[in-house]
Order: sequence, then structure tokens, then C-alpha cells
Amino acid sequence: MRKELLEDIGEKELINRLGKFMPKNQISDDCALVRTKNNDLLVNNDSLVENVHFNDITICAQDLGWKAVVSNISDLLSSGCQKTIGITISLILPAKTEWIWVEELYKGINKALKNYGGVILGGDCSIGNEKIISITALGIQGKLKLRRNACKPGEIILTTGIHGLSKLGFILQSKNNFEIDISLNKRLINKSIERFCRPKVYPDFLKNLLKTRSSERITRVGCTDSSDGLFQALHDLAIASNCKAIINYEKIPKDENWPKGDKWDEYYFFGGEDYELVFSLPKKWAEKLSKLDKNIKAIGFFTKGEPSIEFKDYKKNELLKNTPFKHF
Amino acid sequence: MRKELLEDIGEKELINRLGKFMPKNQISDDCALVRTKNNDLLVNNDSLVENVHFNDITICAQDLGWKAVVSNISDLLSSGCQKTIGITISLILPAKTEWIWVEELYKGINKALKNYGGVILGGDCSIGNEKIISITALGIQGKLKLRRNACKPGEIILTTGIHGLSKLGFILQSKNNFEIDISLNKRLINKSIERFCRPKVYPDFLKNLLKTRSSERITRVGCTDSSDGLFQALHDLAIASNCKAIINYEKIPKDENWPKGDKWDEYYFFGGEDYELVFSLPKKWAEKLSKLDKNIKAIGFFTKGEPSIEFKDYKKNELLKNTPFKHF
Repeated sequence: MRKELLEDIGEKELINRLGKFMPKNQISDDCALVRTKNNDLLVNNDSLVENVHFNDITICAQDLGWKAVVSNISDLLSSGCQKTIGITISLILPAKTEWIWVEELYKGINKALKNYGGVILGGDCSIGNEKIISITALGIQGKLKLRRNACKPGEIILTTGIHGLSKLGFILQSKNNFEIDISLNKRLINKSIERFCRPKVYPDFLKNLLKTRSSERITRVGCTDSSDGLFQALHDLAIASNCKAIINYEKIPKDENWPKGDKWDEYYFFGGEDYELVFSLPKKWAEKLSKLDKNIKAIGFFTKGEPSIEFKDYKKNELLKNTPFKHF
Repeated sequence: MRKELLEDIGEKELINRLGKFMPKNQISDDCALVRTKNNDLLVNNDSLVENVHFNDITICAQDLGWKAVVSNISDLLSSGCQKTIGITISLILPAKTEWIWVEELYKGINKALKNYGGVILGGDCSIGNEKIISITALGIQGKLKLRRNACKPGEIILTTGIHGLSKLGFILQSKNNFEIDISLNKRLINKSIERFCRPKVYPDFLKNLLKTRSSERITRVGCTDSSDGLFQALHDLAIASNCKAIINYEKIPKDENWPKGDKWDEYYFFGGEDYELVFSLPKKWAEKLSKLDKNIKAIGFFTKGEPSIEFKDYKKNELLKNTPFKHF
């Protein structure tokens, strides 16, 4: 009998199966929570594998170092981290790697840490066939627990910014220009490459949430980041919180030069690596917060129902039949 | 001009160079220390790479999972960890990996955690060309800080047990039997394979140190583990503590059936992966502790001088000219 291989199983099912080895409270979220006597800690782990998540053509070592840190910090922030403590770095590198590449990688890592806080706590380096950067990040849990399972029917769905840019940046960097059959605005090109190579995160997000909170009794907010795309983020929130997301296509914040068309909608919803936060709040809180931070936009609401995503404009539901974004 | 490659640099120099990117206090030890308001945390990271640290011939998935956890816990214990909090696991696996392999790996991981404490805090799984298990372990710093740089001239050097067994186990598992030209005792064979596949650590070590401590004012002890071999452990202590190790060859604890000869001395001193603790204590403390734990043996002492290792019996110094154990 042929044994079952990982390629037969697929990513979703694999994560499901791995879940049975983990404590119940740890698997549905971006981070794990560690209770210590005084401060609760958030722990996150994220690996970037050459030719799966990056290659030498699309991203230089310094940008890769930056991005490896940012993708971890994004997970901490989307759990309500008030301060990044630091990271451990596990590097696997082929013996033929140039030293200058390693130096540049660390420059990028240190730039991101300087920007967003935290220090290098240590690490490990081994030889291997392909480059792998695996980072574990530690942070302190702030006063609001942001969790995937804390969304409620009736709450407004919001996002901190524009999606799809990173995917476009990736296509441009891959020189897959045949994919793009129209001439693009120069500013959009630069912005997309910048977003792909040097994504930003929102360290003030928690502070602004706390500023606009009506009562200290509120301690949980439904939230995740869009590292795997806006659609996946909404999907994860809906599943974990057991409610249905209704999205208003017209309200989705797009770059003013973002082209129209199905392909561009796909990039927008399934692109990934934009590291925007996707979350839900009661209406008044949502209004206060959007006033305080003009980048934050309401894009829909949660309602009772089977965990799923629907567009208010039914014609747009065609989009959801394609789920082109797949990774192992 | 040809750029400098990692294979030109070598492991030692690479670690040196990476050191400049890290805070001073983090690089000379087995773990990083994270100060939180109440409990200080120890953080450790260790990766196992297929065909570098393991392969399918020498070790099965369940043993590998056990060993990956134990190698991390050993680093925590050798820093004075009083309790393992948990681990994050980053897995890189080829798509052709059988699911049963993953399941067995997690069985081994969970057996080790059940034995030594700690839970799975989360992780990440990606596709890649070769299997990689990268673990980050978190623990709570106990009342004695065990550090590589805390050895002092005049102190007795001790070890928790026998070395070389894991190396012999590895050779037996590799079926490199041509390396072994004599017939081995059956019990030694089994013990060595057991040591290689299911190494043990000493969770009571800190407790016993504290029990035999003469004063609470003593807060530091020089210590590391022999994951890279007894010689490397002594070398690391000598360098970090700036003193000279004098080893009494006659006192080194060996298995009663361990063969004689230069090759067997090499396995003993340079073998690695035995996860015994190597440490130094003032004479009286050393005596008290060895009485309490009969496995602990004095093997020499530290003295003033250039950081180095010498045998009391000068003929044995020939051994130190060979440093066959190398890894990237």
C-alpha cells in the first residue's frame, strides 16, 4: 500500500492534523500565549524558505532580512503585542552562500528591529541545500487580547490599509511582465515594489484601540493580519469566530491607480504579504478609531450564519469561487 | 574578484562574525536570557538538518522528535533552567514526506515533553528540499545562573556522566561497521544506540546544586553541555572563563566495556551528542554534590593560564592535536 504523502494531504489538512498534537488554545491564532507570573508573553514562529517564499531574483538579502522580522512582528501585533522583546534566528545556508549575503541579511534584520523594537536573542546556523530563515519572536501581551476567535455578529469589519500591492510588487520583481498587459502608473509600480520588499506594520494600532475603547471591561478584539491575503484573513476570522463576513466591495480601499478587472481583484483578495490588520469592532468604536487613524477603513460587517464570506454585491461572489492563492 | 563564501570561512569564524550583530551578553552561552518583570526567561534555538545532523538510516522519526526536544532542553538545563515552559516547532519538509513520518516525529516530541516538561506553543510548516526541524525552547531561569563564563581557577571540573556513547551509537546505526575492527560487548552496543537515539538529560541537576550550595550568595556556576563533545565543552568553558583546564585522563568515567586505543579516545572526547553537563565547582561543593549524585565525577580542575586544555598525563596531549569533530 502506498503511504500517504504530504503532497497528497495539502496545507489545510496538514495544519488540521498537526493541530491534534497541540494544546487547544494555541492553534487557532497567530501567536501562542505564555503565562508568566507578571507579564504574559506572545511567541511566534515563521520560516522563509528559498524558492518557496523567496528567491534571489525577487528580493535582495537586506530586504529579506527586514521582511523576515516584519512578518513575525506582524503576527505579534495582530495578537495585541505592546512591546517586542526580541527574536531568535535560525539560519540554514548552502556552503556556497557568499558572506556578503549574510551580512546584508543581518543589516535588514537589524534595521527592522531598530524600527519596531526588539533585539536579537540568539540563534543557530547550519549548512543545508537551500536558504532558510526561521525566526521566533517574543513580545509582551498588551491590555487588549486580539484574537481570531473574538469577532461577533453585528461588528464592523475594518482594515488598516490597502491590499494587493505586495503581490503586484512580487510580479514586477519576478519580471513576469507578461502577466501585466496594461501600462501601469509609475507611482503604483514603486509603491508595490516597496510594499513587497519593505512591508510596514502598525506598532501604534494597539495604542489607538486602547485610546478609543469605551470601557476597560472590553478585553478582547477579533483580529488577524493579511499575511496570507485579505480573503484568507477574513476566512480565518469567520471560522474561528463562527460567523459570516459580508464584504462591501465598493468600500474596499484601493490604490487610486489600481487597475480594474477580475485579475486585479484576485491579486487584491488573494495576494498576501501586505501585513495589514483585519479586525472587527462594535460600530461606535469603529467610527472613533477610523477618525483617529485615517488609514483605517470599514469594509463590511459580521453576521450570524455559517462561517463564510459573501459580497454585498452578489455579482462579486464569482470572485470567491477562485482561490488561486495556495501554499504548502 | 571572487566573493567570500561560507565554505571558505568555516564554522568558528562564521559564528565570530555573526557575533557582531548580537548583543554582547547573548553570544557566549547556550541560551539567551530575557528579563521580564518577575521571572527571567531562557530562550534557546536549535535546528536539525537532514544529511547534516541526521538521516533516515541512522534515526527513525520518533527518536528524532525526542532528540530535537532533548537537545534544546539540554541547553536550557545547562543554563540553570528550573522549568521548561514550552517549544515552538518550525518544520520544513519535502512534499514527498510520508504523513506517518510526521506523526511519528510528533509522538517523539510529545514523549520528550511529557518526560521533561513543557508544551508545544505553536509552529510553522513549509515545503522544502530537505527535512529540517528547528525548535525554539523557553524556560524559566532558576536561582543559579549556569554560564560558560563563570568557571574559576582552582575549581574542580565535573561531568554528569559518560561520553562517546552517542558517537558509537551513530557509527553502529550508520552500519559503518568497518570502522569497528573489534567485537563489542552486546550491552555496550545497546547502550550506545539508546544514547544516540534517545539521549537523556538531568532535570534534577539544578535542584541538587542548590541542595549542596553552601551559601545563597553564590549565584553563578560555570557550566555547559557536551552536545558538541567533551573536548568542545571544556574548550568553550576555558575560553569564556579565561582559564586553563587540566584533565586527569585516569578519572574520566568510561563504560566498563569501552575499548582502549586512540580511536576510542577520539570518539570519547570529540563524539558529541551525549548531552552530559560539564561544569566546575569549588572543591567542597564538588565533593558534596558527587556524594548526592553518584553519576557525577570529578575529571580535573581549572587553573590560571591561557584558555586551553591539557592532560595531567603529558602523553595524552597527543590526542588534542586531532580535532576530528567538525561541523558547519
